[in-house]
Amino acid sequence: MPLQNLRIVLVRPSLGGNVGGVARAMHNMGLSDLWLVAPDADFRGPDAVARAAGADLVLERARVADTLPEALIGCGVVVGTSARSRTIPWPMLTPRQGARRLIEAARQAPAALVFGAERTGLTNAELDHCHALVTIPANPEFSSLNLACAVQVMAYELRVAAQDDPAPGLADKTEPADIASADQVQRFYQHLEQVLIEIEFLDPEQPRKLMRRLMRLFNRVQLDQNEVNILRGILTAVQQPRRRNNI
Amino acid sequence: MPLQNLRIVLVRPSLGGNVGGVARAMHNMGLSDLWLVAPDADFRGPDAVARAAGADLVLERARVADTLPEALIGCGVVVGTSARSRTIPWPMLTPRQGARRLIEAARQAPAALVFGAERTGLTNAELDHCHALVTIPANPEFSSLNLACAVQVMAYELRVAAQDDPAPGLADKTEPADIASADQVQRFYQHLEQVLIEIEFLDPEQPRKLMRRLMRLFNRVQLDQNEVNILRGILTAVQQPRRRNNI
Repeated sequence: MPLQNLRIVLVRPSLGGNVGGVARAMHNMGLSDLWLVAPDADFRGPDAVARAAGADLVLERARVADTLPEALIGCGVVVGTSARSRTIPWPMLTPRQGARRLIEAARQAPAALVFGAERTGLTNAELDHCHALVTIPANPEFSSLNLACAVQVMAYELRVAAQDDPAPGLADKTEPADIASADQVQRFYQHLEQVLIEIEFLDPEQPRKLMRRLMRLFNRVQLDQNEVNILRGILTAVQQPRRRNNI
Repeated sequence: MPLQNLRIVLVRPSLGGNVGGVARAMHNMGLSDLWLVAPDADFRGPDAVARAAGADLVLERARVADTLPEALIGCGVVVGTSARSRTIPWPMLTPRQGARRLIEAARQAPAALVFGAERTGLTNAELDHCHALVTIPANPEFSSLNLACAVQVMAYELRVAAQDDPAPGLADKTEPADIASADQVQRFYQHLEQVLIEIEFLDPEQPRKLMRRLMRLFNRVQLDQNEVNILRGILTAVQQPRRRNNI
C-alpha cells in the first residue's frame, strides 16, 4: 500500500494543536508516518491530543529530526508545499499532480511531502531539498491555509490517487528501476560543489545562487542510482588530473 | 463567479473553534456565504476568532437559521455530506463529482453544501432535504474528519471545479520562460561529449551508451536557456586549466 510508504514532514511546527490536527487528518486518510523537524510545538500535549481526536498513535509514533535532510533519509521523491510563487523557475504541481507523483514513487521507495512552519512556510534552503513543489489553489488575497487543513487537502488527494492508480507493475514498467535516495543525491550535490570550487567556477564566498540553480535542475530529473554513479564518476575524473598535477 | 453563489450550511455546530476553522477554510478558497442552523457553538467567541485567523468577516456575516429548510430558502441544488454509508438508496457522489454539480448549479442559482453536527452528522430527516450526498473517501477505521477539515476538502474541490480543473493551465504558467531550443541542447551534448573525452571518462571508440544515458537524463529536465549557459560554462571551466597546462 503506497500510503504506508508516505512520510509527512512538518518543519518547525509551532502549535501543538496543529500537529494534533495533522495527525487526525493523516489517520483519516490512511497515512501514519509523521516526522517533525526541530518542532517548537508541544506535540504530545493536551492541545495536540485533543485535536488528534483519537489519532493519538500517529502522535506517539511521530519521529523528530534536527534537520530536514535527516528527516528525508531513505526517501526517493520529495515534494514541498508552498503558498507563494517563486521567482526562480520551479516545477509547480497542482495538489492532484503532486499526489499522483508521490503515489507512483511510494510504490518503490519511501516518499516525502514537506510542509513549512505555520507563519513562514519553507525557506529557499529547505525548498532546495524538494524535487517538485505543490501549491494548493487559493484566494490570492487570503492564501495561507491552516497547517492541518493543508495536510488534509494533500492527504485527501493522496488517498484519491492511491485508489485511482493502476495496479502496481502496469504503469511502472518504463520507470527507472532504482530512484536515488535523497541522501545519495545530497552527496552528489556536495561533490559537485567541491568540484566547481576546484575548477574555480564557483566562488565559495557566494555559492548559494549557482548551487541552488543546479540543484533545482537535477531535482527536476529524478535521478536514478545509476545516473548518480555516472555523474559522480565524471566529477571524480575531473578531479584526477588536477590532483595529479597539483593544479 | 459561482463560488459567490455557494452557501456553506453547518447544522448544529457545537464548537466555536470549528466554526472559526470553517470560516478560514472558506475564505481561503474564495467562499463567503456561511449559514449556521441552530448553532450550539459560540461562533464569534475567542476560539472562533482565533481559528478564523483573519477570516473574521465570514464569521461576522454568518447567518443563523432555526431549521435546515430555512437555511436553504432560495437554493437550487442542495448537496449533503456524510461519512457513513446509508441503508436507504441515495445518489452518492465523490467530492469531485459533488463539487462539479454544485458549481454548475451555482452558475444559475444559489446552491448549498450541508454539513452535520460534529458528533452525529446529518440525520435522515435532514438528508431528505438534499438532492445528492457526498462522501469524502476515508480510512474505514477512522472516517470522521474534523468539521473544518471536511469543509476544507470540499471548498478546495469547489475552487478547482470553478476553475474548470486548472491542472494543465496552472502548471504551464509557472514553467521556465525560455526553454532551450533543440539545437542549443544539441550543442551542449557535443560540448559535454568533447569534455568527457578530454578528461578520459569517455572512450571515443565506444561512446554510444554513456552519451545516450546522459542525454536521457538531461532530456527529462527540459533545460531552459539559462541552465544550458551554466552547464556549458562549467564545461569550459573544466577545459581551461587542461589547455593551459596541456594535460
